[in-house]
Amino acid sequence: MFVGIDVGGTNLKAGLVDETGRILAVKRIPLDFQGADAFAQTLAELSETVIQEGGAKNDEIAYVGMGLPGAVSGGNVLFITNIPMENVPLEALFRRHLDLPLLLGNDADCAAVGEYFCGAGRGTRDFAVVTLGTGIGAGLILDGKLRGGLSSSEAGHLVICHGGEPCNCGRRGCWESYASATALIRLTRSAMAAHPESVLHAVAAASGGVEGRTAFDAAEAGDETALAVCREYVEYLADGAVSLVNILRPEVLAIGGGVAAAPDHLLLTPLRELVGRECYARHGGRFTRILRAERGNDAGLIGAAFLGRAI
Amino acid sequence: MFVGIDVGGTNLKAGLVDETGRILAVKRIPLDFQGADAFAQTLAELSETVIQEGGAKNDEIAYVGMGLPGAVSGGNVLFITNIPMENVPLEALFRRHLDLPLLLGNDADCAAVGEYFCGAGRGTRDFAVVTLGTGIGAGLILDGKLRGGLSSSEAGHLVICHGGEPCNCGRRGCWESYASATALIRLTRSAMAAHPESVLHAVAAASGGVEGRTAFDAAEAGDETALAVCREYVEYLADGAVSLVNILRPEVLAIGGGVAAAPDHLLLTPLRELVGRECYARHGGRFTRILRAERGNDAGLIGAAFLGRAI
Repeated sequence: MFVGIDVGGTNLKAGLVDETGRILAVKRIPLDFQGADAFAQTLAELSETVIQEGGAKNDEIAYVGMGLPGAVSGGNVLFITNIPMENVPLEALFRRHLDLPLLLGNDADCAAVGEYFCGAGRGTRDFAVVTLGTGIGAGLILDGKLRGGLSSSEAGHLVICHGGEPCNCGRRGCWESYASATALIRLTRSAMAAHPESVLHAVAAASGGVEGRTAFDAAEAGDETALAVCREYVEYLADGAVSLVNILRPEVLAIGGGVAAAPDHLLLTPLRELVGRECYARHGGRFTRILRAERGNDAGLIGAAFLGRAI
Repeated sequence: MFVGIDVGGTNLKAGLVDETGRILAVKRIPLDFQGADAFAQTLAELSETVIQEGGAKNDEIAYVGMGLPGAVSGGNVLFITNIPMENVPLEALFRRHLDLPLLLGNDADCAAVGEYFCGAGRGTRDFAVVTLGTGIGAGLILDGKLRGGLSSSEAGHLVICHGGEPCNCGRRGCWESYASATALIRLTRSAMAAHPESVLHAVAAASGGVEGRTAFDAAEAGDETALAVCREYVEYLADGAVSLVNILRPEVLAIGGGVAAAPDHLLLTPLRELVGRECYARHGGRFTRILRAERGNDAGLIGAAFLGRAI
């Protein structure tokens, strides 16, 4: 059995996970950072809690795996976006409190591992996940091994538009700036400004503001402006998807994150059409299937628990 | 020892290669395709010729490796761009004439293998080569293994410009359409049309026409128009290079092909500056070194000979 810990923006979520990916116990606590050593102690205590609540003993646990929004190398945290830790030997600190190995991974990488073993990537050896949220997270499993640690993929930062929209990473034209949920909201707002007659306004007002789903909801109601927004968004999404497919030719490319909940006929179906038409694989080589990620928010926790199988 | 065969546009080149990558004998003959079986016989005879000329015997040869401009899967040729062969079991045909295994690879993949073992990739485990010629060829070695066969990379067809220049592959905006030698010639011609006063005209006339090197030669002579062409070209080259680096974070990205012969201060130095400034690795993760490919036209032959070590 394994413990998986998912470090989110505001919470820590830990789970006891068995060999089949079943979550036997889960506990969530607010993230309250009081220094690296206290953080390591919290992680250790949280691990022991779910081990006990799941009816297991420490010596039945192979390791604790943890996914976090940042960069890692071995047992060291290089940085975490929302926690002031840089170059911290977290595994060493953790083991002062609990004598189990601590494996670290980027959160998008952990989501990829979770989907690989227990979701859309089952049965493949070459698998990619992109998570469409505030940004675009990406994780790659190639020949059965995670591209993790110092090789962790930042496929959200492939450029699709030379000199285009500014990206948080500092350059211009990144895929993330066109195909994240944030970008979809920008496209939606821009269309609303140009089309005061669009149903988008009513849909946004009803939900308290523009969200990633606003354009899809209005498109479902038949709104032309919303349909055009969805179409433009899918074209941008396809640009990066085709690039990934042409570079790596995975067996499956899974699409996750909030945006992936959109109806098939507005998102995955046109995406498959565009990728099928544009990817180089039609000249020979493997054809990549495009699937929806299956494990939602659990993918990160399950993937953290299964990190040891993929590295 | 190994035999490597490089199938080019107009010639077949075979070499006997030892374990250190030294070419002990080499023979080149015109490509004269008279059907798949005759082709297999030619390959077998060519192999025996270089084995004999190198003073070796058939039973000292581990295999014959062959690189070709097309797609392969196992011992089968799916297609070759300049030879009318589709879905041909070439290894089986070959073995009727010479009882040695025939390993097949894409030519850009073989160039990557050659550079990996005997050139710019020595000592790495994660290595990428892009070859800037008529198109952009790409080969990836990840964790010591070639992404070959059905996973062979077509990184020249990552999009860098949404809806941009039409590409031979059928889509728009591919890196190859902006950063190949062909694209550089297009940029050069366009600048010449806009700047009749530019030295580019004299440089092109002196060499009998616009070539990939025309802009670099005129820039060396201090021509402002040529300098601007070189700068624009390097920016496009950097777009795709940064994307590759962000997705895969190889230890080394090697640049080969005719364009790579340009002076450092016009090509590799500004490319390194742009990639260093724009790649995501500055936020954590591995920093990719950008090097010039070392083995030139031999890389394909040596890589074909070393295919068995990378697959």
